[in-house]
Amino acid sequence: MMESTAGQLVLGLLLLAVAALAFIAGLFLLVWLPLVVPQPHRRTPRRGRARIRATARTARDTIATRLRRWPVTATLTQVVGHPARMVVLGFGAAVLLGSVLLALPFATGSGQAAPVMTAVFTATSAVCVTGLVVVDTGTYWSTFGELVILLLIQIGGFGIMTLASLLGLLVARRLRMRLQLGTQAETKALGVGEVRRVILNVLRITVVVEVLIAAVLTWRFADGYGHGWGRATYLGVFHSVSAFNNAGFGLYPDSLMRFVGDPLICLPIVTAIIIGGLGFPVLFELRREWRTPQRWSLHTKITMGMTGILLAGGWLAIGLAEWTNPKTLGPLGVADRLLAGLVTAVMPRTAGFNSLDIAGMHDFTLLMHDVLMFIGGGSASTAGGIKVTTFAVLGFVILAEIRGEPSVHALGRKLPAGVQRQALTIALLGVAAIAASTLALLVLTPFALDVVLFETVSAFATVGLSTGITAQVGTAGHVILSLLMFIGRLGPITAVTALALRERTRRYERPEERPVVG
Amino acid sequence: MMESTAGQLVLGLLLLAVAALAFIAGLFLLVWLPLVVPQPHRRTPRRGRARIRATARTARDTIATRLRRWPVTATLTQVVGHPARMVVLGFGAAVLLGSVLLALPFATGSGQAAPVMTAVFTATSAVCVTGLVVVDTGTYWSTFGELVILLLIQIGGFGIMTLASLLGLLVARRLRMRLQLGTQAETKALGVGEVRRVILNVLRITVVVEVLIAAVLTWRFADGYGHGWGRATYLGVFHSVSAFNNAGFGLYPDSLMRFVGDPLICLPIVTAIIIGGLGFPVLFELRREWRTPQRWSLHTKITMGMTGILLAGGWLAIGLAEWTNPKTLGPLGVADRLLAGLVTAVMPRTAGFNSLDIAGMHDFTLLMHDVLMFIGGGSASTAGGIKVTTFAVLGFVILAEIRGEPSVHALGRKLPAGVQRQALTIALLGVAAIAASTLALLVLTPFALDVVLFETVSAFATVGLSTGITAQVGTAGHVILSLLMFIGRLGPITAVTALALRERTRRYERPEERPVVG
Ligand SMILES: [K+]
Ligand SMILES: [K+]
Repeated sequence: MMESTAGQLVLGLLLLAVAALAFIAGLFLLVWLPLVVPQPHRRTPRRGRARIRATARTARDTIATRLRRWPVTATLTQVVGHPARMVVLGFGAAVLLGSVLLALPFATGSGQAAPVMTAVFTATSAVCVTGLVVVDTGTYWSTFGELVILLLIQIGGFGIMTLASLLGLLVARRLRMRLQLGTQAETKALGVGEVRRVILNVLRITVVVEVLIAAVLTWRFADGYGHGWGRATYLGVFHSVSAFNNAGFGLYPDSLMRFVGDPLICLPIVTAIIIGGLGFPVLFELRREWRTPQRWSLHTKITMGMTGILLAGGWLAIGLAEWTNPKTLGPLGVADRLLAGLVTAVMPRTAGFNSLDIAGMHDFTLLMHDVLMFIGGGSASTAGGIKVTTFAVLGFVILAEIRGEPSVHALGRKLPAGVQRQALTIALLGVAAIAASTLALLVLTPFALDVVLFETVSAFATVGLSTGITAQVGTAGHVILSLLMFIGRLGPITAVTALALRERTRRYERPEERPVVG
Repeated sequence: MMESTAGQLVLGLLLLAVAALAFIAGLFLLVWLPLVVPQPHRRTPRRGRARIRATARTARDTIATRLRRWPVTATLTQVVGHPARMVVLGFGAAVLLGSVLLALPFATGSGQAAPVMTAVFTATSAVCVTGLVVVDTGTYWSTFGELVILLLIQIGGFGIMTLASLLGLLVARRLRMRLQLGTQAETKALGVGEVRRVILNVLRITVVVEVLIAAVLTWRFADGYGHGWGRATYLGVFHSVSAFNNAGFGLYPDSLMRFVGDPLICLPIVTAIIIGGLGFPVLFELRREWRTPQRWSLHTKITMGMTGILLAGGWLAIGLAEWTNPKTLGPLGVADRLLAGLVTAVMPRTAGFNSLDIAGMHDFTLLMHDVLMFIGGGSASTAGGIKVTTFAVLGFVILAEIRGEPSVHALGRKLPAGVQRQALTIALLGVAAIAASTLALLVLTPFALDVVLFETVSAFATVGLSTGITAQVGTAGHVILSLLMFIGRLGPITAVTALALRERTRRYERPEERPVVG
């Protein structure tokens, strides 16, 4: 990191604040407003705090209604129309905003404006919480630039968790209404209480986890590596936010490789990543019912089970494959090998830090990475990929088919046909996106299949790991990877929302439960 | 090819004849017998040929009934049980027989017995009509060895066409009966007339195509390359049989590379491959109705359409990618480039000859090969892969899902849910088999992902193309590739039969039609 002048920094932070406010206002207009419907007012209480609250509620509903009728908002809402499209627009706006800020001269350490494609690529990578970089984050960007990236990561991670959760609620609501009414009932609205509850709870979980992890990391950076408390706090906060949001941006050019044997850096980061990758619906349920797994919803059971299986399996497979590799685990002691193996198993799902050299890994390990990255993490989480539930649903379909059962069951529940088809669609469209971009990059660049496939899967699943070719794939390659990150981040969730909202009513033979896929 | 002594050759041919007879008898007992049910006899005609025929029919039914009650046969039938299992057993027996014959000392040109794994691998490759080789066919084996390989190819190709067609009939019959009776009706028998019709028609198509193509090739080998008529006939027959059965075994160490610019060699071979890869159900229908495509069944329409699309697309993509590659198309004239491009587009589906150097191809072209090989050819054909109909069904499912349609339609027909799930199962189990064996080979061998993936896809889809590493993957690698060829050849057809036979009755809203998948 090179220092900006004090004046530049102040100007920059002001700009950042204005931008953040503008962005939040825009999101509010586009996303929150159409979701809010005035709730039937109870009788206005006579006095005290209740009265103030009631008045505030009335005022808010009035503002919302007025705003909704305001021509600008009304037009925008109509243009945007489908809730899934709003999410795409919101993320597009965030990328645009980030690109503009990162293209400012004082966003770089050198004081020269970054090339447009560098700014766009970095902004996309940050908003989509991917972590692929074409320039070294810690040395290329100024403090202002790094704060922009941090803001974009937080917007991206928070945005995907809340929006995916809200869309999931909307889908569940609509399907429930159709079932009850037996019609193609249409409703676009969520109760204001629900929206607030989701936003506040996501915020609460985010703040609690990020602050706790940042505190541990700050202490370790200060105590163990001799940084001053200011710098240590900056490092701690940056890595904590980046980890919880599964972003994979770091301030060291070698990611976490210098900390390969330090559990006090590695384990807090791994913890933040795993929590961030479970997804809000799971975290919300776990907080209430972590002691009674038998009462968990199907979605939580599948997500927790798959997370455990993929972590344990990845740890074992990668550990065994790399155990004696002189470029990775070979030179380390046994305890460090176990720690580095765990970190390496966690990162492809889909955090994107690395404490071992990816380019030095065995081809077997790279392909294991491809598989783990493609599967990804939990739905409505900061992790990417097709999501563990999508993968599990496909597994249950095949299991049922092999057993010759006419309908598909998972852990004692029947999976609706719609979910099966959505899982298939998401997985195969993911394969198609990766295949197409891999073919394109093979034509455009001199690199071989193994590293190109690693790069495209990493971009699609918003992982951010790389064998080191990201900077060298050329402008066309950067455009392809940017699109792939954007598609990978928003494709599954918007696709499943669009698909599910159009699903027709079906007859049910047994009680059904719908895990969130995508 | 090195010459065996005359005595060895005579002994060998005698052995071959005995083995072929034993094998046919075994197949007859295992496969034909349980499929035959005596038909109700009409009144015995008084005289003439009709009387002789009726007597023969009675005699045959009596023999079949007796044989079926014979303890050995009855036990075998009971052990084997499921028709799909019979197919596996039949192919296993053919591989065993071929391995024994190829392990005989005079099967090699040197007169020293081949190592067991070489014999087993070559026999598996021939029976599964794959064409992967660990030794050069033309120089390593004696004439006897080559004839064994030719016999195994013919058994494998003929076997898969007839058995897949018969299993397809059985499945269609059983589903029709269930629909009519509304019950889980069980019947294991096909009419003797149907079985005979399928076998005779497959035989007729095989003989006609192979003889015609062999004639053209023989003339070209004699007239254009100065071979004597005996040698030319041998070369013509071998390449014709190998091409029609999509086997990919050749007698030249460079496959067809020396004939890259000779349309009179390339085009007959390409024709035989395409015809062989359409599958018996399509060929049978085309012979009757080639002039009226609008009356074709859904299966034929999809197979013909996908074949056209994949050939044209592959030709275009591979041609463009390799146009200036100095190791492949670059040095050729324009006409030769077009011819070689066509040949290269045909071969991955799934013939396995090559007229260009695979190892010299661009990584883009290799990945295109992987995709084309995985998709493969037509059902109940000599081609491998998951089959074009399987691929198309998955495409139609995604299309329906994207359009928000509650049921899946293809070309005006509804696709039953069972077929959708079977297509998904076949495709994903294929991916799993390839992923597992690729991971294993990456651990066991020093080769990189691109060539290993090419090898495993080639084995699974019974293609037989290679970047040249087949001989160097070690014994464990050879075992894996052999298993993969066997699974790839029999997995899809037996899986779909087993799955479909267990499928329950469903209610139908619109007229349905069932394409054969797998
Ligand atoms: K990431
Ligand atoms: K082949």
